[in-house]
Amino acid sequence: MDISALRTAHPEHWMRATALRTLALDAVNAANSGHSGMPMGMADVATVLYGKHLKFDASAPDWADRDRFILSAGHGSMLLYGLLYLCGDPEVTLDEVKNFRQLGAKTAGHPENFLLKGVETTTGPLGQGIANSVGFAIAEESLRARFGRKLVDHHTYVIAGDGCLMEGISQEAIALAGRQQLGRLVVFWDNNNITIDGEVTLADRTDQMQRFRASGWHVQEIDGHDPEAIDAAIEAAKKTRKPSMIACKTHIAIGHAAQDTSKGHGALTDDAQLQAAKDAYGWPYGPFEIPEDVKSWWEGVGARGAEERAAWDARLADVSERRQAEFHRTMAGETPKKLTAVIRAFKKQVSESQPKAATRKSSQMVLEVVNPVLPETIGGSADLTGSNNTLTADLGVFDETDRKGRYVYYGIREHGMAAAMNGMAYHGGIRPYGGTFMCFTDYARPAMRLAALSKLPTVFVMTHDSIGLGEDGPTHQPVEHLAISRATPNTHVFRPADTVETAEAWELALMSTGTPSVLSLTRQGLPTVRTEHKPRNLSAQGAYVLAEAEAKRQVILIATGSEVALALDAKATLEAEGIGTRVVSMPCMELFAEQDEAYRRKVLPAGAVRVGIEAGVRQGWDRWLLGERGREAKAAFIGMDSFGASAPAEALFEHFGITAEAAVAAAKAML
Amino acid sequence: MDISALRTAHPEHWMRATALRTLALDAVNAANSGHSGMPMGMADVATVLYGKHLKFDASAPDWADRDRFILSAGHGSMLLYGLLYLCGDPEVTLDEVKNFRQLGAKTAGHPENFLLKGVETTTGPLGQGIANSVGFAIAEESLRARFGRKLVDHHTYVIAGDGCLMEGISQEAIALAGRQQLGRLVVFWDNNNITIDGEVTLADRTDQMQRFRASGWHVQEIDGHDPEAIDAAIEAAKKTRKPSMIACKTHIAIGHAAQDTSKGHGALTDDAQLQAAKDAYGWPYGPFEIPEDVKSWWEGVGARGAEERAAWDARLADVSERRQAEFHRTMAGETPKKLTAVIRAFKKQVSESQPKAATRKSSQMVLEVVNPVLPETIGGSADLTGSNNTLTADLGVFDETDRKGRYVYYGIREHGMAAAMNGMAYHGGIRPYGGTFMCFTDYARPAMRLAALSKLPTVFVMTHDSIGLGEDGPTHQPVEHLAISRATPNTHVFRPADTVETAEAWELALMSTGTPSVLSLTRQGLPTVRTEHKPRNLSAQGAYVLAEAEAKRQVILIATGSEVALALDAKATLEAEGIGTRVVSMPCMELFAEQDEAYRRKVLPAGAVRVGIEAGVRQGWDRWLLGERGREAKAAFIGMDSFGASAPAEALFEHFGITAEAAVAAAKAML
Repeated sequence: MDISALRTAHPEHWMRATALRTLALDAVNAANSGHSGMPMGMADVATVLYGKHLKFDASAPDWADRDRFILSAGHGSMLLYGLLYLCGDPEVTLDEVKNFRQLGAKTAGHPENFLLKGVETTTGPLGQGIANSVGFAIAEESLRARFGRKLVDHHTYVIAGDGCLMEGISQEAIALAGRQQLGRLVVFWDNNNITIDGEVTLADRTDQMQRFRASGWHVQEIDGHDPEAIDAAIEAAKKTRKPSMIACKTHIAIGHAAQDTSKGHGALTDDAQLQAAKDAYGWPYGPFEIPEDVKSWWEGVGARGAEERAAWDARLADVSERRQAEFHRTMAGETPKKLTAVIRAFKKQVSESQPKAATRKSSQMVLEVVNPVLPETIGGSADLTGSNNTLTADLGVFDETDRKGRYVYYGIREHGMAAAMNGMAYHGGIRPYGGTFMCFTDYARPAMRLAALSKLPTVFVMTHDSIGLGEDGPTHQPVEHLAISRATPNTHVFRPADTVETAEAWELALMSTGTPSVLSLTRQGLPTVRTEHKPRNLSAQGAYVLAEAEAKRQVILIATGSEVALALDAKATLEAEGIGTRVVSMPCMELFAEQDEAYRRKVLPAGAVRVGIEAGVRQGWDRWLLGERGREAKAAFIGMDSFGASAPAEALFEHFGITAEAAVAAAKAML
Repeated sequence: MDISALRTAHPEHWMRATALRTLALDAVNAANSGHSGMPMGMADVATVLYGKHLKFDASAPDWADRDRFILSAGHGSMLLYGLLYLCGDPEVTLDEVKNFRQLGAKTAGHPENFLLKGVETTTGPLGQGIANSVGFAIAEESLRARFGRKLVDHHTYVIAGDGCLMEGISQEAIALAGRQQLGRLVVFWDNNNITIDGEVTLADRTDQMQRFRASGWHVQEIDGHDPEAIDAAIEAAKKTRKPSMIACKTHIAIGHAAQDTSKGHGALTDDAQLQAAKDAYGWPYGPFEIPEDVKSWWEGVGARGAEERAAWDARLADVSERRQAEFHRTMAGETPKKLTAVIRAFKKQVSESQPKAATRKSSQMVLEVVNPVLPETIGGSADLTGSNNTLTADLGVFDETDRKGRYVYYGIREHGMAAAMNGMAYHGGIRPYGGTFMCFTDYARPAMRLAALSKLPTVFVMTHDSIGLGEDGPTHQPVEHLAISRATPNTHVFRPADTVETAEAWELALMSTGTPSVLSLTRQGLPTVRTEHKPRNLSAQGAYVLAEAEAKRQVILIATGSEVALALDAKATLEAEGIGTRVVSMPCMELFAEQDEAYRRKVLPAGAVRVGIEAGVRQGWDRWLLGERGREAKAAFIGMDSFGASAPAEALFEHFGITAEAAVAAAKAML
């Protein structure tokens, strides 16, 4: 690699880009950990993108109409921190850069959206960023259609590496973006031919450009170290109506002894080699030192958007106050006040009419009243629209012919759907929800975890939530999936017992600002158990006494979802035998755990045997059954301890012993 | 669709294929559930494949050198059951077909390998079958290289639908197969342009043929109802050295009123429409009735391979007895007797030398002694070879230049890797293991669940198993992943405390015949805690007393993996204060749960307070802490209840309070 030719061809650009390179080298060296090579290789692309194209104002990283930049190759986090520091982001001081990867620093190992406003997305798990970007681009199109181009008019830029493109989720994202003709999306592929194990060809010989073209993308190939080529490619990408992929031929760890090798992917911490690289760069400065002219150029870049932002502010001030308020409310993720009122009215009507309904159907009934008052919802399904019941009458279909449409046909792409929904939530202004079968939580898991970690209020509508789905059999019957989502920090798992609880779960999910919700919904019909209308959202406390013991309380039955009705049947039998039995409905364990101890003890007092009933594995239940510190209660659990089977639902509940009779027997055995 | 033209063009073929169609229609109608349209659309392809090409003998569905047929579009299960029944598979009687999707039937909703020998793979979750097929093809190449073409010489055929191709895992599979030039792999794409939500174009406009070509596949496009075109395409596919994709333009639910519609995807149960379809087919027979000439032709197909199998038997009989024995042992999945001896010798040496080692390094030390005595292992990693330590000196690299190589560079494809490993395990003759970071369990989940459901002894090497991985931060730090795998039925999760336990875990994983193993291994170094050599595999009982109380027992510390050393430190402190403390190492909760109650009580007697220590969430621990029926012990847990953070490992353990001091304090607070 002839570094000197690069230096002389574009001397000013060279020093600006090299500021990013040396910051990465110095920070990784100080941390003795991290990834030096990717920021070094992509510094030229980042410099041209930020220097000439990216619409942003470093002093206002939350400006609603900024262009979004997503570092899908999140291990190159020092590229992003370097950009934020150089551009003058107020949160990214030099001390933060020097403190890279240390406890309490905002400059975490991988970029985390909740630590820095300037970080659009939490990345690191590969392929997530490029899949989020599809959601960003959908959000932009949708908001532009809703609020007009004067308020919403921006691009989404992504840097993705070979790892991102090898992950399967990238195909889901590429195909969906191509289908949706998301022309404001521009992906730079860091084509350096190196992964951790060696050259890419060890594991892949895919012609990536052909692959993107096959899904309808605009594709260019450039030298990723040539600032003029980069500039021209971005110009062309902005002009096309297709999503754009720019294949940037780069050298990982450029100018370092580890250039073009897998060693260059990781932490480069050899002092002599580091110095030699800086010498080759013509960079005579000390660690973390940026010469004044370079720093001030970058600060100019950071301030470049101030004028554009002021003009945007003026345009916003120009629209009606009502519209301004609606824009601010939408972007802030605040739900309209009407929501609680429509949910209450719905609950009242349901408690009176007492329908028998599958909770997946209940969910659609709720959405029919919610979607009209929440114009920011975007629904969808991974090709199970008629099963998940996620489409309502007024939504319209989002596609290239109707950007006001609010329903996305995600295709058979649970993972891509979940990540796209996260992207919309990251972007702001959209409340995404999407459905699949609960068993396919597995396919969406990496994105569901990132929703939780990144504090996104994404709503996962997971129907067919037990063996109750019947004949499709064990490949489609969730058994461990409630436990999986409950094991995940910052996740609310709602398993409503009837239409009323489903409405309450939706209300909580839609009012959440920093926690994703998993709605666990049945295929099979359920009776209404909340037959007495309560305006208050009882599910908000996670668990509550649904039916009090009539005789002296000896048994507490705790159940969720479809098993609550079964608990009520068991109670009837026990009471008939003079055994006082309380039934506790527990639609959300996490919210119950958040209540104070007095409430928890009130719902689950000592002095009675406990039976938990849920058509899933026991894991996660013992805290409520055995008592939080142990020695509290005798307990039993009626549920699954194996995979399911193929048969009609009723036959399966009988076969696996999840019946009112079994609950009665378990309780009596302990008395 | 001009059915009559098809009927007259190839009248005999038509009736043979229509037998499959009507069986699907009748069985789905009887079950009132299932998927009629796909078997109807792909009946012609299946008839030509089975009729002219597939090497098999219906009377011996476990013949080692049969061609494999994988129904990746598993919802079309009646196509497969129809084929097995018509060809005379002894397990698939007409009664089984009539009992489709009923409790206890072998004809489950989706094909399940453990119910029928004639089912190669459990499918239904889309994309899994095509990804398994890569493992099948690798297994065939590997075994052919090892045992020679006389014994191993077969193809892998797949039917995949639009859903399979939309799932991201398909890209991982396609790219890996293309890279590996798996020329014996032939995929039929059921190109019917219909998914559940409607036309494919609602969600996808990808040029699938171009996409496959981009990854180095041989691609053909045919009319999927033309038997001559199908035959010619299969001939061509068998000749190329590339993996082959045959795009079959078909009509879903052909000849039925629901043809070419999403309704045709599901259960077609309207009697009049069903009769009209049969009329259009020229099929005057009753439900489940197959005319004699058609049935006897199919039985001929089922018997066609008998001669070839006899010739193969003769060839096998012709090789040396030792080689025959080795072939049988390998295909039966029996581990060589030497394994236990080398593990024992290794353990002895380790207990003496007492190395400090990360268990991911211990794992490599074990593999270095295991791989030479188990020629059937195929290792690999999802681009983390140097981190997972899955490569050993003698393996060699599997690629198109060396089919004897036993290490696969899977690329950044955790899901594709897991599914390919499952494919090898389904095929038989291979013991697959593969590594990634434990946090990326999420990416591999759908395939890990199928390993458990399908009873495959796949080994998942999951390193960097806690916040102990340090600076890469919360996106890479597993917290809930032990709970996730433990929640999954039929899964052994091993979290060894040192090199000795790692060897024991590997021994158990490699001797497993029907249960996958998850090895949870540290990034950080651990001391040897098993300093006294025991020939017996103590981990086989799941948990055992590692260090007995010296003073009167008041405390039991239960720990796994990296936290066992910490428990020993806590014990030392407690004993110094006169508090007798037992330390229980619990490398595998599932195996401990399988022990009889007497043993479990011996290890965890009542009468002492318990502290569990594991750098993960508490979920899954309460059974051992609180007692299986409750009221047994006071207990506390030292672990994680949030996501991690970016910092050096030691700082994180301190920050999150996972320390010996915390364990001591928790124990004393309860006394």
